[in-house]
Amino acid sequence: MRELTVNLGERSYPIYIGEGLLLEAGAYFVKHGISKKSPLLIITDENVAGKHLDTLASVLRNEDFTVATAVVPAGESSKSLSMLEQLVAKALEAGLDRKSAIVALGGGVVGDLAGFVAASYMRGIKFVQVPTTILAHDSSVGGKVAVNHPLAKNIIGAFHQPEMVLYDLETLQSLPPRDVRSGLSEVVKHGLIWDEAFAHWCGENADRLLALEPDALGYALHKGCSVKAAVVSKDERENDLRAILNLGHTIGHALEAVAGYGELLHGEAISIGMIGSAKLGLRYGAPEEVYTVTKSVLAKCGLPVKLPAEFDVDAIMEAMMHDKKFSENTMVFVVPTAIGTVEIKRDVPVAWVREIVEQLKLEA
Amino acid sequence: MRELTVNLGERSYPIYIGEGLLLEAGAYFVKHGISKKSPLLIITDENVAGKHLDTLASVLRNEDFTVATAVVPAGESSKSLSMLEQLVAKALEAGLDRKSAIVALGGGVVGDLAGFVAASYMRGIKFVQVPTTILAHDSSVGGKVAVNHPLAKNIIGAFHQPEMVLYDLETLQSLPPRDVRSGLSEVVKHGLIWDEAFAHWCGENADRLLALEPDALGYALHKGCSVKAAVVSKDERENDLRAILNLGHTIGHALEAVAGYGELLHGEAISIGMIGSAKLGLRYGAPEEVYTVTKSVLAKCGLPVKLPAEFDVDAIMEAMMHDKKFSENTMVFVVPTAIGTVEIKRDVPVAWVREIVEQLKLEA
Repeated sequence: MRELTVNLGERSYPIYIGEGLLLEAGAYFVKHGISKKSPLLIITDENVAGKHLDTLASVLRNEDFTVATAVVPAGESSKSLSMLEQLVAKALEAGLDRKSAIVALGGGVVGDLAGFVAASYMRGIKFVQVPTTILAHDSSVGGKVAVNHPLAKNIIGAFHQPEMVLYDLETLQSLPPRDVRSGLSEVVKHGLIWDEAFAHWCGENADRLLALEPDALGYALHKGCSVKAAVVSKDERENDLRAILNLGHTIGHALEAVAGYGELLHGEAISIGMIGSAKLGLRYGAPEEVYTVTKSVLAKCGLPVKLPAEFDVDAIMEAMMHDKKFSENTMVFVVPTAIGTVEIKRDVPVAWVREIVEQLKLEA
Repeated sequence: MRELTVNLGERSYPIYIGEGLLLEAGAYFVKHGISKKSPLLIITDENVAGKHLDTLASVLRNEDFTVATAVVPAGESSKSLSMLEQLVAKALEAGLDRKSAIVALGGGVVGDLAGFVAASYMRGIKFVQVPTTILAHDSSVGGKVAVNHPLAKNIIGAFHQPEMVLYDLETLQSLPPRDVRSGLSEVVKHGLIWDEAFAHWCGENADRLLALEPDALGYALHKGCSVKAAVVSKDERENDLRAILNLGHTIGHALEAVAGYGELLHGEAISIGMIGSAKLGLRYGAPEEVYTVTKSVLAKCGLPVKLPAEFDVDAIMEAMMHDKKFSENTMVFVVPTAIGTVEIKRDVPVAWVREIVEQLKLEA
């Protein structure tokens, strides 16, 4: 079992990573002061419910917790105010009070949604994250929770830190291979922005990660969470440093929007985005290996490194220019200067970005 | 001009109380770091919009602020998730970014709603309160913001402190007399729970307050805000002490619910509730003046001190018993032990409360 602490003063919390933690959930809940006198609400989605909901609910009930459950449709569309209203109704009917906790069992969508229910129900109650995807190693650190508005993603939300994160590696064993690869994209990103040795390790151990070997997976998730935690601890409210976590995301978000959300998985989109950032790094004089290593590590993890030919470059540029940080002629980008080191460039010529997006179609 | 600070560490903020502050709003906004580069959104209701919206918007535009406005229907029904969604759309269309501020121009409903928009838009942006009612002196201190759910009032919300409160006494001059009286109820409450001399002062100066004499009104609002600020500073997240602010509210909320929200104004309901609390105080051995002074001060302010005969005592008791803090036989009440001092009693016999509610119909 691996453990780390996200250091945020009185809002600090632990992340436990190991095999079989779901079966020991009761003891962890007790250890972290979750009340048995007040009911809990586990929120999960249809995909995860069939696999792990009964297990978690039974384990907690066996420890004398009072447990209610809510299952939402899988996918981004559940992150809505209408779903918030339904879940608050569920919480009221189940009798949740100010000492209750909301438990998020699932990936990033469930974490974001359940986290915002916890942040706003009775002006904020306790929150426990039980991630069941690799991608969620990223979203489970930092306390950013939100729902979507018809006009914008993640625009209604809060910073609400969990009491703890319980990461059971066994829940990852049933992930579809495409979701495994997509999740590894953010793992690699944490190496690329912060930890050269770990970035190389990801390339060298890609086969073990893709095979979901528990020891490699546990190490990678611990490292990934540690980098995210280090950044978030220095900049909880996303004022400056936290922006480096967006490596590959400016192009990546645009690709997701143009493809239609869900067509290109988040990790796939930012993989292509990180290749773009590496090419931008070369323009600013970074050594060639910034590009070659980035590309080789991502490719070894089975991630796309080339923009599919059917993407329209004009549409991608337009999607990016919606970002309010950009002026007519310049954009803000996280740019690697070496493997494990990035800088924020605030005056990247739009023309360079367009050239690079066009070149992304030509990658070998 | 009177000024006080709500002490909450790095979330501390000032309250300015005086005549004509609306016309000086630009200077106050600049002084408190509200950005001119990012647009502002003033949220108000239909009643207030006709009186003060153009003034505030013009004053700010003259100082080179970019100002958007949103007008919601007056009344509690605007505190909804659907209105939140509409206001977020408005904020997005107006281009509000993370450095923007939301300005609440109005009473408690507008403050609660606009405050929750500010708390959740982009996970929290700045917030300025410009209260236009006496009752809002209470809600503008403490940072409690929320919207309602069909099943429960104020159940979806946050603690989100404003950057400042700008209280222009001139905006109070056009309040309907019934709203003036209702607002004074919370002013008197702040005396009754914390400051004996101020409680007596309210009785002695009731005529000046009802006539909206600026000097008396400014003094009373400053005192009321100061008491609220002192309590909130010691207990921001409502863990214990803050409960004393609920003097009269347990019976009061039940009366509001039974009458149908809006039939009995909030201040009227808690006035009757405070008479009930005083009678409860006598049961616990408080001196007779706890009851006589409470009643005389509230009556001088033109507030009801008697429960109208048409109220059904069973319905009131049932409404109260929905509170989860209560067991089958005992209730939790804020009980005065002297004028200016209260205690929280956690084992008040339900039978006593029923007797007192029945007696409230018989008050002279």
